[in-house]
Formats: sequence, C-alpha cells, structure tokens
Amino acid sequence: MKKKVTMADSQASTTLCPVARAEMVVGDRWTVLALRELFMGSHRFEEIQAQTEGTPQMIAARLKKLEAEGLVVRRLYNVRPKRYEYHLTKKGEAFYPVILALRGWGETWCKSASEGRAITYTHRLCGKPAGLGPVCESCGLPLKREEMTAALNPAYCDERDSRLQAFKEERAHS
Amino acid sequence: MKKKVTMADSQASTTLCPVARAEMVVGDRWTVLALRELFMGSHRFEEIQAQTEGTPQMIAARLKKLEAEGLVVRRLYNVRPKRYEYHLTKKGEAFYPVILALRGWGETWCKSASEGRAITYTHRLCGKPAGLGPVCESCGLPLKREEMTAALNPAYCDERDSRLQAFKEERAHS
Repeated sequence: MKKKVTMADSQASTTLCPVARAEMVVGDRWTVLALRELFMGSHRFEEIQAQTEGTPQMIAARLKKLEAEGLVVRRLYNVRPKRYEYHLTKKGEAFYPVILALRGWGETWCKSASEGRAITYTHRLCGKPAGLGPVCESCGLPLKREEMTAALNPAYCDERDSRLQAFKEERAHS
Repeated sequence: MKKKVTMADSQASTTLCPVARAEMVVGDRWTVLALRELFMGSHRFEEIQAQTEGTPQMIAARLKKLEAEGLVVRRLYNVRPKRYEYHLTKKGEAFYPVILALRGWGETWCKSASEGRAITYTHRLCGKPAGLGPVCESCGLPLKREEMTAALNPAYCDERDSRLQAFKEERAHS
C-alpha cells in the first residue's frame, strides 16, 4: 500500500523529481543517521540518541518527522511510564538500498584504506562475501538486506560500546 | 586514486561508519540537489541555482564544499570576466548509485501513482526499459549511468523550462 503524499513543503507539488521528493523527507544528516540506527537494530530512543550523538531535541524531531512521513511507527513497550520503541515500516525498510549505496560510497571514498570496513557482509544465497553492492561481488545477484549476514569490525563494536557507555555515564551525572 | 580524508568534522576520526562519513559530506538536501543537477548535465552556477531553487549563497556554499571534498572541480570557461563551470570528479561520479537509489525510493514512496515518472530510462545493453534499479528490470544486469538513455517526462521538461524562465525573469528585474 502506497502512502498518500502528505508533504507539507510547497515544493512537493511543484516538482516531479523523485530525488527532490525524497530529499524533502531524508535530506538531513541526522535523519539518515537515525534510519541507519533503526537498520542496525536500535529501537529505543536512548540507543538512537547515543549512537547518532545528537541532542534529544534533534533526535526527537527527526523521529517525529519520520513517523509523520510513514517511515517509522512507534510501539508501546512499557505502560507505566509510557515508553515507545521505533520500528521501520515498509516505506522505511524500502529505504535500505539508499543506505547500502551510501555505505558503498562512504567505504570507498570517505575512508582511508587502512581503516577497514565497519561491517563485512556475507551473502547467504551463495555463502560468499557480498562486497559493497548493489549486486553480490561473488555471485552477481542483487543484494537484499534479509539475505545478508553482518560481521562487525571489532573496532566498530568497540566504538559503539564506548558511545553507549559514555552516553549512560553522562546521563547518570546530569 | 583515492582522495585523502580531509574532513574537518571531529566525528570523522571517531567513527568507522561509512554512512556517517558519507553524510558529513552529502548530508544536506541542497548538496544532493546540486549533485542531481550536475548529473543532469547542468554545469553553470546559474543553471544549478535555477533548478535547485536555492539562494546564490546556499548554492555557492554547497559547491565550495563539494569542491573541497573532491566531488567537483571548477573549470574556467570564460576569461574576462572569469567564469567557471562545475564538473563531477571520479569521486563525484561514484555517487551516482546513491542518486539512483534515492530516485527509486522517491518514485515509489514519495509520489502518487498518477504523477508518472520524471525520467524513464532505457538500458542500452538490452534495449529495454531499465526500471528503478539497482539492476535492469528487463535483463537483470546492474545499471550503470553511462549505459542508460534518459527520456524526460514532458511535464518534467516543462517544469524545468519554467524554472529556468522564472529565474531569468527574476534576475532581469532585480
């Protein structure tokens, strides 16, 4: 089911360009980082805030917009006090090829060779390295998120653990 | 040749995440729209400004950053007065899969079915419709920019002509 176009921005009705339409929704770094976290399996506000390193106000505004635009739904997981988890909708899940393409470009052009990849994917359909996409570097089939297994670089794991730890400590002392 | 990482942003050295690295460069709607225009074949400042509908200050800042990050080079095309054209480098050209993925998502999820696609591509390798990617919907091969022929929706052509016309008229009266 396609979502009705709800974009308030006046440009939405003045351009047929799908890139411009998409950028009205996701044309902001913090929005993309919040989506990355949802794809990484972070569903709680604090996890998303800790890993994106945004302020609560910035992250709340992005999640609210993503919900209004139909990429994210909130699910109640605690009644007293009311606490919500954030989950991707079909429209949100469909954004994955953009994340994959950003990853490919970022790994190739925005890092030095010595740093190593943050995540290495194995393509479950062929059992071999998936590479940077959009098709599997081993078997040539288009990469789908649900057909890949992620192995995180230990340095990237440490980095994420440190961020979460720093976030918790900061909150405990504020 | 890979560009040395020049990112001034302090986060660059604190994360291995390629999506975060990429978003430090392109995590802004106007930057992506400027790149779209360069891929559309607009190379002059005024064309890029007219089609993105940004202010001269906004577009100048984005092009300057894209040049500093190595996605764009300026080429002198007029000596007196000095006038430059903007062209994509290899790093800039390599961003095309992100644009293609944004297009696919935008066409599918950010427009109503009745609007029609802004651009229809034919895959020259098989001579059939390319679809929304990342692989050709007709032959299954990965889509490459240089192997596709674009046919613009007449309504999208009109929209672009109108924007250029409005821009010229506004400039003539200011």
